[in-house]
Amino acid sequence: MKNQSRRKFIRQSSAAAIAAPFLSTAVTRALAQAGEKKIGFALCGLGNLSTNQIAPALQKTEHCRLAGIITGTPAKAEAWKAKYNIPDRSIYNYDTMSKLADNADIDVVYVVTPNALHAEHTLKAAKAGKHVLCEKPMEATVEKCQPMIDACKAANRMLAIGYRCQFEPNHLECIRLAREKTLGDLRIIEAEFGFPIADPNQWRLKKTLAGGGALMDVGIYALQSTRYLTGEEPILVSAIETKTDAVKFKEVDESIVWQLKFPGGVIAHCSTTYNASARGKFMATTDRGWFGMDPAFNYGGNRGKRSDGQDINQPRVDQFAAEMDDFAQCILNQRPTKVPGEEGLRDMKILAAIYESISTGRSIKL
Amino acid sequence: MKNQSRRKFIRQSSAAAIAAPFLSTAVTRALAQAGEKKIGFALCGLGNLSTNQIAPALQKTEHCRLAGIITGTPAKAEAWKAKYNIPDRSIYNYDTMSKLADNADIDVVYVVTPNALHAEHTLKAAKAGKHVLCEKPMEATVEKCQPMIDACKAANRMLAIGYRCQFEPNHLECIRLAREKTLGDLRIIEAEFGFPIADPNQWRLKKTLAGGGALMDVGIYALQSTRYLTGEEPILVSAIETKTDAVKFKEVDESIVWQLKFPGGVIAHCSTTYNASARGKFMATTDRGWFGMDPAFNYGGNRGKRSDGQDINQPRVDQFAAEMDDFAQCILNQRPTKVPGEEGLRDMKILAAIYESISTGRSIKL
Repeated sequence: MKNQSRRKFIRQSSAAAIAAPFLSTAVTRALAQAGEKKIGFALCGLGNLSTNQIAPALQKTEHCRLAGIITGTPAKAEAWKAKYNIPDRSIYNYDTMSKLADNADIDVVYVVTPNALHAEHTLKAAKAGKHVLCEKPMEATVEKCQPMIDACKAANRMLAIGYRCQFEPNHLECIRLAREKTLGDLRIIEAEFGFPIADPNQWRLKKTLAGGGALMDVGIYALQSTRYLTGEEPILVSAIETKTDAVKFKEVDESIVWQLKFPGGVIAHCSTTYNASARGKFMATTDRGWFGMDPAFNYGGNRGKRSDGQDINQPRVDQFAAEMDDFAQCILNQRPTKVPGEEGLRDMKILAAIYESISTGRSIKL
Repeated sequence: MKNQSRRKFIRQSSAAAIAAPFLSTAVTRALAQAGEKKIGFALCGLGNLSTNQIAPALQKTEHCRLAGIITGTPAKAEAWKAKYNIPDRSIYNYDTMSKLADNADIDVVYVVTPNALHAEHTLKAAKAGKHVLCEKPMEATVEKCQPMIDACKAANRMLAIGYRCQFEPNHLECIRLAREKTLGDLRIIEAEFGFPIADPNQWRLKKTLAGGGALMDVGIYALQSTRYLTGEEPILVSAIETKTDAVKFKEVDESIVWQLKFPGGVIAHCSTTYNASARGKFMATTDRGWFGMDPAFNYGGNRGKRSDGQDINQPRVDQFAAEMDDFAQCILNQRPTKVPGEEGLRDMKILAAIYESISTGRSIKL
């Protein structure tokens, strides 16, 4: 199949896909099996994460390619166009996203905008017939999450949340250790992730854009680890907040400790901060041993230890590349993602319960 | 001064001491300075801790000696008498403790009985004119603690609680790091101590004797560490409990997570358990670094790390010997102990708040 006819073919099947959604996938899968199709990603929001992690990661994927960009900043559009050889017709701003429907080169919109814009951009992408990979946290509030799930379902498109650690081999190894009880039955998990946030003017410190502070941004990794290690949903949560810099953290949380109870009996205690030395780790104590990672949540270099003396040190992967390749394969092979919108919503509800516990001084039943 | 006249002298001054309490101390201090006086300890309760830790530790002290025993088990009395060459007149049972008043060889009663007997034995010792070193936790309930303080005060005798870690050089080094801000300002502390308790019939699992379970027995070490690292008293606490073995832990807590807020802004998250792999450690995260110990609460071999790459590895001491030598010096030099009854009571009130938080589902203000 020559390039021109392939492009035309994909565009047609993509247009048809809104009505008969997985037909196009069958076609792209056939093309992928023939080695000709890579899933086209458009990055929506060209901030630090897109610039320094996701775009480079796309170059390392097997099944993805950077096919377009969506940005509100013309200068960024020019720079990315030049750097990544992106055609003009695949460059959008937030007001022109409906035109994505006409672009068969783009299969997925990866939403990397501030939290409070995730729903808007996810809905626009879904309505344009695109699959959506959306960064964590899913949105700024619980209420805005279900419409994202509904929009993608209505468009018969997949929605995944960017939980990169669920594609990190060391985390997968720890999940295996927990499931197979290699070192015993899980009893207590402690997890923490925090760092000293720098620029006081960034969107992460603005309530309307971020929804919350350290908890929403990095605490969510610690929370995720307790959920995927146990494989359960917490039934009880309580939390305490501290704020030592009321100016910098006027709008969002600075540091929080929280604890969880899981139905199988595991309890967890966690912390997150925007105002302490960078530190991300977890430790699972079992009835007869333990295993954990330190550091756990870095982009690379994560490693861990086990009570039997063995190291946890799986081959390093680019977590964003692994995450995107997995989503591409979900699309190509019509299999569900393990990090769907529902997974993001579950975390959002727990995060909301943590904030509710802080404001009410009560343990919150989930 | 010959032995006989010295003994007579001490007995007389000791008898006088109930009315004019520190006269005897002045005398013993003078004797100690002359190298002739060691503070005589009577161990009250000859269980595992006395047998395996405290009695051997007494042999390593500079300023103490095993001078007597108080036990309800005649066979133990015989065995200890033979092993440690204890004269018959220095062997008591719990009903004969008032006769301690007549025994000038004994300066201190070290109460090592089950928690719920601490008040009774402390009061008996104080009334007999003896200083009291009482094992942690101070008692089984908050209510029974103040009378212990009052009784020792009324008898003009010192009361100390057996917080051995406050005499452990690595813990002292960590306190120094916190106070001097060597690695920055404290932000978050996590601490845990637990072990899998064996014999299901031991007193530690009986509510009436222990007052509580893992929290009272070993969680108190984690709590202590958050208090002496911050040098502050917590103002807010919340906790969650889990119980996976409702038979073994029918009467007392199995595993608890709790969190604390301190007035200076530090927050802490902790755990304790009687039903998981032994693990005791703490980690203090600062604004620009961290330091911590793992293991932290063992009788020996504790060690730690700092974010600047240095190890925390102070010379090993026998913590019980250090604790007893310090108490002896407090008596000899008429200086206050850093672990007085009031310190034990403070912990007891926080432990009670942790239980209250569990039972009410509320954060408890302190």
